[in-house]
Amino acid sequence: MTINAVVWGENVHEQTNKVVADLYPKGMHQAIADCLNAADGVNATTATLQEPEHGLTKERLAQTDVLFWWGHAAHGDVADEVVERVVEAVWSGMGFVALHSAHFAKPFLRLMGGPCNLTWREAGERERLWLTSRNHPIAAGLPDYFELENEEMYGEPFGVPEPLETVFISWFQGGEVFRSGLTYKRGAGNIFYFRPGHETYPTYHDANVQTVLRNAVKWAHNPARRIANPTDAPNTPVDQALEPIEERGPRLHKDGEEGYR
Amino acid sequence: MTINAVVWGENVHEQTNKVVADLYPKGMHQAIADCLNAADGVNATTATLQEPEHGLTKERLAQTDVLFWWGHAAHGDVADEVVERVVEAVWSGMGFVALHSAHFAKPFLRLMGGPCNLTWREAGERERLWLTSRNHPIAAGLPDYFELENEEMYGEPFGVPEPLETVFISWFQGGEVFRSGLTYKRGAGNIFYFRPGHETYPTYHDANVQTVLRNAVKWAHNPARRIANPTDAPNTPVDQALEPIEERGPRLHKDGEEGYR
Amino acid sequence: MTINAVVWGENVHEQTNKVVADLYPKGMHQAIADCLNAADGVNATTATLQEPEHGLTKERLAQTDVLFWWGHAAHGDVADEVVERVVEAVWSGMGFVALHSAHFAKPFLRLMGGPCNLTWREAGERERLWLTSRNHPIAAGLPDYFELENEEMYGEPFGVPEPLETVFISWFQGGEVFRSGLTYKRGAGNIFYFRPGHETYPTYHDANVQTVLRNAVKWAHNPARRIANPTDAPNTPVDQALEPIEERGPRLHKDGEEGYR
Amino acid sequence: MTINAVVWGENVHEQTNKVVADLYPKGMHQAIADCLNAADGVNATTATLQEPEHGLTKERLAQTDVLFWWGHAAHGDVADEVVERVVEAVWSGMGFVALHSAHFAKPFLRLMGGPCNLTWREAGERERLWLTSRNHPIAAGLPDYFELENEEMYGEPFGVPEPLETVFISWFQGGEVFRSGLTYKRGAGNIFYFRPGHETYPTYHDANVQTVLRNAVKWAHNPARRIANPTDAPNTPVDQALEPIEERGPRLHKDGEEGYR
Repeated sequence: MTINAVVWGENVHEQTNKVVADLYPKGMHQAIADCLNAADGVNATTATLQEPEHGLTKERLAQTDVLFWWGHAAHGDVADEVVERVVEAVWSGMGFVALHSAHFAKPFLRLMGGPCNLTWREAGERERLWLTSRNHPIAAGLPDYFELENEEMYGEPFGVPEPLETVFISWFQGGEVFRSGLTYKRGAGNIFYFRPGHETYPTYHDANVQTVLRNAVKWAHNPARRIANPTDAPNTPVDQALEPIEERGPRLHKDGEEGYR
Repeated sequence: MTINAVVWGENVHEQTNKVVADLYPKGMHQAIADCLNAADGVNATTATLQEPEHGLTKERLAQTDVLFWWGHAAHGDVADEVVERVVEAVWSGMGFVALHSAHFAKPFLRLMGGPCNLTWREAGERERLWLTSRNHPIAAGLPDYFELENEEMYGEPFGVPEPLETVFISWFQGGEVFRSGLTYKRGAGNIFYFRPGHETYPTYHDANVQTVLRNAVKWAHNPARRIANPTDAPNTPVDQALEPIEERGPRLHKDGEEGYR
Repeated sequence: MTINAVVWGENVHEQTNKVVADLYPKGMHQAIADCLNAADGVNATTATLQEPEHGLTKERLAQTDVLFWWGHAAHGDVADEVVERVVEAVWSGMGFVALHSAHFAKPFLRLMGGPCNLTWREAGERERLWLTSRNHPIAAGLPDYFELENEEMYGEPFGVPEPLETVFISWFQGGEVFRSGLTYKRGAGNIFYFRPGHETYPTYHDANVQTVLRNAVKWAHNPARRIANPTDAPNTPVDQALEPIEERGPRLHKDGEEGYR
Repeated sequence: MTINAVVWGENVHEQTNKVVADLYPKGMHQAIADCLNAADGVNATTATLQEPEHGLTKERLAQTDVLFWWGHAAHGDVADEVVERVVEAVWSGMGFVALHSAHFAKPFLRLMGGPCNLTWREAGERERLWLTSRNHPIAAGLPDYFELENEEMYGEPFGVPEPLETVFISWFQGGEVFRSGLTYKRGAGNIFYFRPGHETYPTYHDANVQTVLRNAVKWAHNPARRIANPTDAPNTPVDQALEPIEERGPRLHKDGEEGYR
């Protein structure tokens, strides 16, 4: 079974900043997709902010098993309609991997329900990611820690909900720590947040980071059939109750009426 | 120290449905506030949909320790601006107690990040709530189970994120179960979802339900000073790093620049 | 890759009780192993209390990917040495599936750290299991609920730690509820508790129960290499610190000394 | 209401090591008790390994609201009978605060169900604890981080179960991170693990550490009446079922029989 991944990239700094363009000549999204395509059984394509509907039509999302999201400078330019579409796709079972500055991306904020804020510093300092969940599938093949010699710092407190699992915690040279790998589930969809990936550093060319990305696409993929109507709240009529009951007392709703939203 | 609670009520069916008006002549919100005011150290007032800004001005929320929310028929009439204000107040440390049909209330949906859907049946059937977390403060003074002779049924799967703790699970006469008491934290704010409370039944007059409400206001209250700017993502300049570091490599941001949102 | 599963059965009532012997002529353990062997890529064998070392030598556990455990009348007869061996195997990455009355089995108690108590009633009443985690891999292929016409009742409060995920909750005809499918992780090992399976009923012949068992073996299996010494607490010498530090202040331990246990 | 705290100390290095004796002339346990007694409404006493039954008789534990535990060199000397007694007291509702090297103390191991292992280095290096859960009651009055200039290093992966909440994460000068403040619940008892406190440094004289200890005693305290028999698994007879049912099918147990353990 092939996993269909879509890597969404904002694709702004690649066009406007020479450092980023030199590091990622085909765009960060393409570099990440290339990394995923090196895994057996993964077919990764890309989508960008500039495409119609940001490349994320309803039809495409319906065919997407896992969506990776990288955004930074243009969070505000993502159309709310597309955001809601992404969120519903997650609820229906699509995996979602939020990368680095996507902590403030609209779909991630919507899925978390928290402020997702943090502290930051752009100094090219050393980051060391420590494994906190032994043999977690997202860490398959990795040692107990790995280093990125130049990264942006993100610091705690990180305003996310308590995760299902903490997989990585980062140490920063300047004195901070950060929960760098966190898992969640929303509706039927698996979510993974992974911290590294500042655009002015070659992070997505790092072998360990690439291992995490390839593990993450497999972890986030749910092979079950997507839920058709993930927000439905169906009425169960009294005469179809699983145990025989008789209606008692007053009621508000008429037979066959929809519930309020 | 007095806990300032505000009970927000939609106040629609109390005005339009004789059954509800007879059960709650001063409104459901007032009945709940009266219940809370019977607890030592609680000062509960009310706010309703029909008031300017739904009774939830920024100033009032700043003074509110715990906000209870009951809504059903008019979720869509709640102004998005007020919803965001409530959500930010929770992130800054205000407690939030979502009651019954508030599973589909805009602030609860925003805070959960999930679809929050369920199945339902309005048949006045028996509900029995079982305690699942021994000696949880929200269950103080309660036996291992208690019954409500007439309630609306809510059934699983309930589309909420995995909670911090499951406190109650309901058994329904017609054959369903439901996670009826769930705790969460978002930002600095404590959140409790409590299922019972359909408007056509005298649920908020029930002694055990009242015990839960009075326990919940104390549990959700966080005495710490509210966080002033709960969404701030401050930059830490290189020269103020806690450990001495030197800036290395290229960077995107200029000194003193704000981060992207 | 083949998953090696071992189904451990107490094998007492099969020998002493005609009802059980008639339902499971080859033993409950063999019935469960047969069910698992019907899945692609699973090789299930059995082990019983009566074998030397209860069939669970250190060598065999080292080759076991997932251990299923069914015990009831003879929990106290399981040797503590074997229990510790099982617990360490879980910590090193072996999956563990505790079935029904194994809530009081020694390895499960050791892994949970809680009392694992509950209420019970043996009346052959109807149990209905509801899914609470949409599209969870352990529920693959199952509808939102399924029924067992005759089962023993287990009731809340269930004295287990808050799980990573609640997958199933049971409704019982006599008025109770129970968290029937719960996931945990201890060390590197995945753990699933699954409630149904009283020995006087044909539960393990039920198609939906069999689907859960076959899903569980895949979910609990961790393909990563087992951790060699899952309880090691190694010293990191000062001169091998990842960042250069100088030793300061007094110390307790001599160079190369083991830590206390 | 006064909270009765007992601080259990191993009291070995205070007697045998001049550095420790000079730092804590009345013992570490007494220093911690003194700190707790400085809080309003707390009455803290001590117990040590050397006392009969290690100072933890059944009667005393029944009167203890929160037990603090510091041990290191003599974990193996703690009698198993006392360990089980402590564990049952936690299940019945007593709070438990495990300090530093108590990660390998028998009661903590029993309550966690995991290996609780870690890496370590005794170099007097700098530790900086970062808050990860905004406005958590255990962090009341603390800034977003605080420092200990000389501490032993503990490093990830830390072999504990996923906590209810992560409250603190430590940064170490030598390059490691560690989850330094973790909450759990076992049975009816609240549990907090707090990392700092190596005996050769003046950690328990630090003002911020003292604030954590005083917050922890209040957080861990559960004012509910202790559960009398926290491991009971009572039978509910068929004729006392909450919903009328008729016994069906074969059964194993006779009327009034105890369940198996």
